[in-house]
Amino acid sequence: MGISDRLLMGPGPSNPYPEVTMALAGPVLGHLDPQFLQVLDQTNDRLRRVFATSNQLTLPLSGTGSAGMEASFVNFVRPADPVVVGVNGVFGERMCEVATRHGAAVIRVEAEWGEPIDPDRLLAAHPSPAIIAVVHAETSTGVRNEIEALGSGKGDALLLVDMVTSLGGIEVSVDDWGVDIAYSGTQKCLGVPPGLSPLTVSPRAMDRVVERPSSWYLDLNLLSRYVNDSTGGGRVYHHTAPVAMVAALHAGLGVLLDEGIEAAQRRHAECGNLLQDGLVALGLELLVKPDHRLPQLTTVRVPDGVDDAACRRELLRSYGIEIGAGAGRLAGQVWRVGCMGHTARRRNVFALLGAMKEVLGR
Amino acid sequence: MGISDRLLMGPGPSNPYPEVTMALAGPVLGHLDPQFLQVLDQTNDRLRRVFATSNQLTLPLSGTGSAGMEASFVNFVRPADPVVVGVNGVFGERMCEVATRHGAAVIRVEAEWGEPIDPDRLLAAHPSPAIIAVVHAETSTGVRNEIEALGSGKGDALLLVDMVTSLGGIEVSVDDWGVDIAYSGTQKCLGVPPGLSPLTVSPRAMDRVVERPSSWYLDLNLLSRYVNDSTGGGRVYHHTAPVAMVAALHAGLGVLLDEGIEAAQRRHAECGNLLQDGLVALGLELLVKPDHRLPQLTTVRVPDGVDDAACRRELLRSYGIEIGAGAGRLAGQVWRVGCMGHTARRRNVFALLGAMKEVLGR
Repeated sequence: MGISDRLLMGPGPSNPYPEVTMALAGPVLGHLDPQFLQVLDQTNDRLRRVFATSNQLTLPLSGTGSAGMEASFVNFVRPADPVVVGVNGVFGERMCEVATRHGAAVIRVEAEWGEPIDPDRLLAAHPSPAIIAVVHAETSTGVRNEIEALGSGKGDALLLVDMVTSLGGIEVSVDDWGVDIAYSGTQKCLGVPPGLSPLTVSPRAMDRVVERPSSWYLDLNLLSRYVNDSTGGGRVYHHTAPVAMVAALHAGLGVLLDEGIEAAQRRHAECGNLLQDGLVALGLELLVKPDHRLPQLTTVRVPDGVDDAACRRELLRSYGIEIGAGAGRLAGQVWRVGCMGHTARRRNVFALLGAMKEVLGR
Repeated sequence: MGISDRLLMGPGPSNPYPEVTMALAGPVLGHLDPQFLQVLDQTNDRLRRVFATSNQLTLPLSGTGSAGMEASFVNFVRPADPVVVGVNGVFGERMCEVATRHGAAVIRVEAEWGEPIDPDRLLAAHPSPAIIAVVHAETSTGVRNEIEALGSGKGDALLLVDMVTSLGGIEVSVDDWGVDIAYSGTQKCLGVPPGLSPLTVSPRAMDRVVERPSSWYLDLNLLSRYVNDSTGGGRVYHHTAPVAMVAALHAGLGVLLDEGIEAAQRRHAECGNLLQDGLVALGLELLVKPDHRLPQLTTVRVPDGVDDAACRRELLRSYGIEIGAGAGRLAGQVWRVGCMGHTARRRNVFALLGAMKEVLGR
């Protein structure tokens, strides 16, 4: 069976940076090798810069973005804790499900899929929530939810933010925005294959960490003793770190920081604009209004009379380009076009627009 | 910072097969791409052959071996379930901790570290346990625990086996031995970097699966709908599969099956014997008696008057060879020498023995 290469313009994974591919193919180091621990420390430093935080506990979890979501709840929710969750897409829904499984009393604050969530409604939903949780960039809709107002108004609550699709693609400022817990994924705007979930936790949140959460694998007390030599007594082995993926993330963050975080955001913005203007010029309709539209993930309505799946299949088979189907209640109604990480290049936008024009016969 | 290559002769990771490295560096496919789903299906088929099982639910979990352990308990333990756990090393201890966190009433059956656990004691420990759990190859001690007798005597219990260090290195026969739940890791005898946990579950166990376990990420009900199109209605997205690591595992299993499972086991046995004889010839003492000794993971006592850490550091710095420290209550008392996967070559054994001779001045 031959493996084709793909231009990955779905909701993730994106194409990895060449430097990331090289790192994946590099020599494997042991998870306690001093050189690997240096790679891990540098990776965490680089993550701090990209998250814009000084949080000591900043690390790549050994699972995908959904593991980051689970870690963010299982380590901080106590039984019957009131947890306010913003829901305007698949990942807000998932937050409710995960929080409920870990015993939270979830208060849902909904908005239409395709619309952002008003921060004031989140802040007013409960007088003293333990956690306010929201998705920054909803991968299922292409909407950007506002975070900054939540940080200033959160009161005693912890602010928990899903940054899976935002980190590296649009502005993210964990400390300035007052975010206490944030997780991301490697396979979106960081240009690294899926498999790790960058996570950062404020000291304020660590003061409230659950001592012995139900998950051993995602227990931040234990993980922090491997990631940081906080006692000066050496690292304490927890589980075997996925060393090849950590090396890949290390390399991807290096590319991003060499380019500059703001320059990378500008690149994502420019490509998003080019793509969105191009789709409109093809006579297609975008789901999200410009004010809350993500540049890195665009939802475009499937035109009447067009066979959703056949179009995507044709793009994949004849052009080697992947775009995403609609998810959840938008299934069959929209396509999701990602332009993230190394994929966010003008040449790729031109490639997709050209192929779309042919496939749609416009 | 330069990255050195290493001869990885610790308790894992082992050196990956060259074909695995190539696969890691191959083009990234989307997790719903038909070609990736074919890679995933083939990977699961290959895992079935290596586990020697016809279990439909056989897949690589998106986490390391410890995630496999967690999945094996969180999906099958109900509150206060009696769970018998064999404990003769770090990973048996870990099983107790994980099972307890998921609500089990754990009955410990202990043996000395370095001795195997008598299967009759495990079978006699409780009249009707929900689960009997044991580690096949204890990575902390180098002991092989007997599994086969547990399968024939388990009665109504589910038999749960940690095969992290055994799979691919010594005989494993999930169906013939009556194992209901088994998990492994990629970074030991499979010759793939760490990051995935191969898991297999019998239909008998799936009949008792917890409907909505506390972990969403490791929920086998949800995972099985992505891994298998069991309803014929298509795959249901759960989380973004770590596609590069799955491609790597696919390649590693291909190498193993091309060599032949029994031939690979013979290679591990030969290298283990060569290594163990060589260590004894250097005047060193092995922890485990021959009958229960693993070929792929050897524990050797640190000789009196020798500086444990200094020796390992010297092997790493001057020879680029990693061996492992003792773990848990054997810390400082033994070294752990792995000879697993692609590392299990006679040339590597000679390299280590030569270096050890020099470092120990013998």
